[in-house]
Amino acid sequence: MRTLFLSAKSAATLISKAGIARCIRELVGEINQDFRHWEQFDKSARLAAHSAQGVIEIMPVSNQQTYGFKYVNGHPNNYRHELPTVMAFGVLADVATGQPEFISELTLITALRTAATSVLAAIHMANPRARSMALIGNGAQSEFQAVAFHELLGIDTFYLYDIDFSATEKLANHLYELGFNTILCGSVPEAVREVDIITTATAAKTHANVLSMNMLRPGVHINAIGGDCPGKTELHPDILNNASVFVEYEPQTRIEGEIQQMPADFPVTELWKVLTGVAAGRVTSDQITVFDSVGFALEDFSAMRYIKRLALANGGLESLGLIPDLTDPKNLYGLLVPTEVA
Amino acid sequence: MRTLFLSAKSAATLISKAGIARCIRELVGEINQDFRHWEQFDKSARLAAHSAQGVIEIMPVSNQQTYGFKYVNGHPNNYRHELPTVMAFGVLADVATGQPEFISELTLITALRTAATSVLAAIHMANPRARSMALIGNGAQSEFQAVAFHELLGIDTFYLYDIDFSATEKLANHLYELGFNTILCGSVPEAVREVDIITTATAAKTHANVLSMNMLRPGVHINAIGGDCPGKTELHPDILNNASVFVEYEPQTRIEGEIQQMPADFPVTELWKVLTGVAAGRVTSDQITVFDSVGFALEDFSAMRYIKRLALANGGLESLGLIPDLTDPKNLYGLLVPTEVA
Repeated sequence: MRTLFLSAKSAATLISKAGIARCIRELVGEINQDFRHWEQFDKSARLAAHSAQGVIEIMPVSNQQTYGFKYVNGHPNNYRHELPTVMAFGVLADVATGQPEFISELTLITALRTAATSVLAAIHMANPRARSMALIGNGAQSEFQAVAFHELLGIDTFYLYDIDFSATEKLANHLYELGFNTILCGSVPEAVREVDIITTATAAKTHANVLSMNMLRPGVHINAIGGDCPGKTELHPDILNNASVFVEYEPQTRIEGEIQQMPADFPVTELWKVLTGVAAGRVTSDQITVFDSVGFALEDFSAMRYIKRLALANGGLESLGLIPDLTDPKNLYGLLVPTEVA
Repeated sequence: MRTLFLSAKSAATLISKAGIARCIRELVGEINQDFRHWEQFDKSARLAAHSAQGVIEIMPVSNQQTYGFKYVNGHPNNYRHELPTVMAFGVLADVATGQPEFISELTLITALRTAATSVLAAIHMANPRARSMALIGNGAQSEFQAVAFHELLGIDTFYLYDIDFSATEKLANHLYELGFNTILCGSVPEAVREVDIITTATAAKTHANVLSMNMLRPGVHINAIGGDCPGKTELHPDILNNASVFVEYEPQTRIEGEIQQMPADFPVTELWKVLTGVAAGRVTSDQITVFDSVGFALEDFSAMRYIKRLALANGGLESLGLIPDLTDPKNLYGLLVPTEVA
C-alpha cells in the first residue's frame, strides 16, 4: 500500500538520461495513441480557481482502467518571487479500487507534453515543407518547442522574440548549443514575417493581440499555446476569421482558448478527428491554420503513464506512505492509540 | 521550494499523541469558524468520476489566501481487496503563487472531520437532552462518530447494528475500551427504537431505505452520512417529507444527498445559516431533524489547516521535491542535461 513518487529532480535525471528529443518523440506517440481512442475517455473541462494573481486548475480524465488528474497553476508574475509561472504535479489512480498509485512532478513533464502536443498537431496542420518557426515568448516552454519541432518536423531555423530580452538570450544560447539556426528579432512582425510556423507562448493574462492579420503570410501555421484561460488571448479575432481553427477539447477551449473571442458557433475541428482521419488537417498550401491549444487533461494522462513506465524501467521512483496500511479495512480507528478513557 | 508531506503513519501518531477526542473537539471549532465565514470561500460541487466499482472525487475550495483540494474515492467492495472503502489525500496551496505547500494523508483525517461535522450539526439539531445514539453501519467511520458525540454532546449509550456482525463486534470492543455503554442489536428497527440520535453510515451504492418512517420516534435527529453520491441513499423519502432537512452545500447535496430523491424545490437549510443564526436549527422537541450530510470540501480545508498546524508544532512532517528548484524561473530547460546535439 505504497504510492510511487517521482520528484522533480528524479524526473530531470530520467529525461536527461533518456534524451529530451527521444522523450518528446515517444510522448508524441503516446498522445497520438490516446487521442485516437478519444471516445474511451471520460472527459470534462478543467476546474479553475481564478484569483487576482493567477489561476489554479485541476484537470481530471479517466478511462475504464486508470484515473488521472493534474494540479497546475498559472501566475504570470511569479518570476518576482523567483518561482516558475507554471508549476504542476499529477496523480494516477486505479479505477477499480480508487487507490492512488503514482504521484509525479509535472512542471517539467508539462513542458514536454505541451511541446509534444504542439508538434503532433503541426504534423497535420503545417505546410509539409516547413523549415522555419518563430518563437514569440521565450520563457520556460520555448526550448521544448524548438526541440520538438526540430526532432519531428525538421525545423532548423528559429526566429526569436520576447519583450524580456534576457529570456531571448537564454533561449538563443540553448538553441546554439543544439546546433539550431537562430535569428534574434526586435519585434513580433519581424520575427514572423518569413516563417512557416509561428508559436506564441506568452504569459500575460490579458487580451494581448500578439499577432494580427497583417503580419501573416499565406500558408502559415500558428501554434497558439499562450492564450489558455478566460481573459488571456494572443490572436486578433481577424486571424481566427481567416483561418482553419483546430482545438483539443471543444467545451474547454470555448471557455479558455483564442475562440473565447468568437461566437459560440464559430467552427472548430477537434484534434482527435484529424488524427483519426475523420476530419482534414491542412488542405491547401495557402491556408492559414491555427492550433488553438489550451492544454487538455488527456495529454497529462498520456505523459504520466509514459514517465511512470520510463521510471519503472530506469529507476528514480520513491515511495510514500500516503494511504494507511490496514489489516482490517473496516478498522481505521485501530490505527490510533486511544489515550483517554471516559 | 519543498512541499511539506504528512504520511498516514505520521498523522496517526500525531492524532494519538494529541488525543482523538481533543482533535475532534478542536476540529469542530475550526469547521465552525470556517462555515461562519461561508461567503468568503469560492465553492463548487465536487467533480466525480463514476465507474461500476465506485467513485473518485476531487473536492476543491479556496479563499483569498489558500487553495485546497481533496482526492477521495468510495468503493464499497474494496474490503475484498483488503483496502479501505474510502481513501483520501489532500493539498493546500498558496493562492498568490500557486505553489503547493502541503500534501497530507486524509483517509484518517476524513474520518475525524466527518465526525466533527456531524456533531457540529447535531449540537444545533438534536434534542438538548439527547443521551443515546444508534450507529447503523459499523465500518471505518463509526468509532469516530461515537467519540465525537460522546465528547461534545455527552452521548453515553450506543445502539449498534451492521449487516456484517464482525464490524459490530469490532466497534463494540472499541467502545467498551472507552467506557461507553453499548447495545448490540439484531435489526435496524431494534437499534433505532429508543434513541435520541440515529447515525446512518452504510456503504452500499444503492437506494437502500435503511430507515423508514415507521421506525422513528418523534424528536429524533438523523445524522445521515452514508448516502453521498447519485444512486446511493439511506432514507425513505417519507422521512424527508416529515422532517426539517439540513445540508452542507445545497448545489452539491441536490446531486448527491438523500434529497436527490426529492423535487428540485424541496426545502432545505444550509448548515452555515444555522451556525451564524440566520436560520433556526431544531425548534420543537417533537420535530424530526435530518442532517443530509455528503461531505463538503470546506470541511477538508479546515481539517488540513488544523492538522498542518498540529504537525508544525509537534513534528512528523517530511518534505518532498515536488516542484523544481530553478535559479532562473524562465529556464526550466536548464534543469536538463542535453545529451544530443543536432
